[in-house]
Amino acid sequence: MKDVSIDTITQAFVDYCAKDTDPRTMFVLTKMVEHLHAFAKETKLTHKEWTRGLQFLMDAGKISDNERNEFVLISDATGLSSLVDMIGSQHEGTSSSVLGPFHILGAPDVPVGGDLKKDNDGATVVVEGKIRTPDGTPIEGAVLELWQTADNGLYSGQDKSQPEYNLRCAMKVGADGRYALTTVRPAPYKIPDDGPVGDLLRATGRDAWRPSHLHFIIVADGYRSLVTEVFPSDDIYLDRDAVFGVREDLIMEYIEQTDTSLLPRDLEVGTNVTVPYFKVDFDFVLVPE
Amino acid sequence: MKDVSIDTITQAFVDYCAKDTDPRTMFVLTKMVEHLHAFAKETKLTHKEWTRGLQFLMDAGKISDNERNEFVLISDATGLSSLVDMIGSQHEGTSSSVLGPFHILGAPDVPVGGDLKKDNDGATVVVEGKIRTPDGTPIEGAVLELWQTADNGLYSGQDKSQPEYNLRCAMKVGADGRYALTTVRPAPYKIPDDGPVGDLLRATGRDAWRPSHLHFIIVADGYRSLVTEVFPSDDIYLDRDAVFGVREDLIMEYIEQTDTSLLPRDLEVGTNVTVPYFKVDFDFVLVPE
Repeated sequence: MKDVSIDTITQAFVDYCAKDTDPRTMFVLTKMVEHLHAFAKETKLTHKEWTRGLQFLMDAGKISDNERNEFVLISDATGLSSLVDMIGSQHEGTSSSVLGPFHILGAPDVPVGGDLKKDNDGATVVVEGKIRTPDGTPIEGAVLELWQTADNGLYSGQDKSQPEYNLRCAMKVGADGRYALTTVRPAPYKIPDDGPVGDLLRATGRDAWRPSHLHFIIVADGYRSLVTEVFPSDDIYLDRDAVFGVREDLIMEYIEQTDTSLLPRDLEVGTNVTVPYFKVDFDFVLVPE
Repeated sequence: MKDVSIDTITQAFVDYCAKDTDPRTMFVLTKMVEHLHAFAKETKLTHKEWTRGLQFLMDAGKISDNERNEFVLISDATGLSSLVDMIGSQHEGTSSSVLGPFHILGAPDVPVGGDLKKDNDGATVVVEGKIRTPDGTPIEGAVLELWQTADNGLYSGQDKSQPEYNLRCAMKVGADGRYALTTVRPAPYKIPDDGPVGDLLRATGRDAWRPSHLHFIIVADGYRSLVTEVFPSDDIYLDRDAVFGVREDLIMEYIEQTDTSLLPRDLEVGTNVTVPYFKVDFDFVLVPE
């Protein structure tokens, strides 16, 4: 096509590609270019705005390194990460939610009922629940992995003052599918806002806060792995999560208790529980692979 | 909005932004996110594809520096640069086309009829024409800036073996609006294909070639500045320009001549013309600002 015009350029892109291009690649690229071009046309994007957008991407590249990926953060802050996550997990099990950048491999095994709180500051929380199928059948041998911030809003790994693997564990459940552990209440924190994503948030009057949450990965033979996070119902950032991670079924109630006799003693929980403590009940529902 | 879902996430993005956000910023960002989300939904973008896309951007960031901007190249190779260019120049004047990365400031003044060929290898070309309004009135005092590749497909600035400002000039026209110069025929060249854009081109069976072209900027008081490029009608890459720059009215005919008496001697062209030479006639039409 010699004469590329506003009306023909999208088709020109398609025509320029080889006929034997991998069909899925071609489909995704075609849709991408269709939307990119439609965006420019509908906004009558100016040269100055185009330049600004490219500078935004250059700045994202400059601030990114092995430790920080500003492109993931752009995807997070525009809702793309959460959307891709939801698209990939439409089923009757527990909703998935973003993995985030703070997961590390090698969390220590902790038995059901174990204690993660140890010497950590912060409110004591006892989390208990079942890993089960949609019809309630316990999933024996499922492994739950948990990671969370300390009371200061930082993860071990980010915060050199915390012991390695602080507030991280892997826990294998038994025939009853039950898990339980003692930990501290996680804290809200800000996504990194000293780069282009921070500029974007400020330009639109958004703040960088995420509601506090516990991250989980649940893995069991024969079931779809679940990557998710759960949020306290009373978190002040619940309805404006900077990365759009909150789902209705991922909200847990932190119920304050003063009676330690309510603890699930059969699971050996409670060796480090002081009153008052928060009790959280939350089941994870997995679907077959 | 607590419960973000596939159906509500686009509106959640809008709702999270402050009501007093600059209206144009809000409009452009809303359209961007609408299209980004629609793209993900229509393709049912997988987590693996999303990761691949983010890696593509990270790789673009890594290969970019002060000399190379892979994000501009992504924009070029997807047609976005050309589209923005066309959106911004819908008028009855000569079409604009991409500026490209090879323009440098400070090109030497050359009088009308001047010689750029000097000791350059390659076919001799005499380019002649008028800078005028749509109704044909000459635009006195207009300044034409030209830059182009040498016969090896490289621009001075890229190619240390060429003299500084080789095949670059600024030329101010007189009351008749006429410009003329002797130069060499430019050569096709490839856009940089050793980075992520190269991967994209290879994945879709596209090549990285651009048809040969002469770059021009035309500036005149009271008129819209014109940034454009003109292409020979017989270039083999004319209908598959890697950056979608070709417009019907930007195609020039290279006509082979053996008779130097046809040269515009009144403009002092021809001091360096050998036969055969190519003659090109091309007018630039500017519109009032």
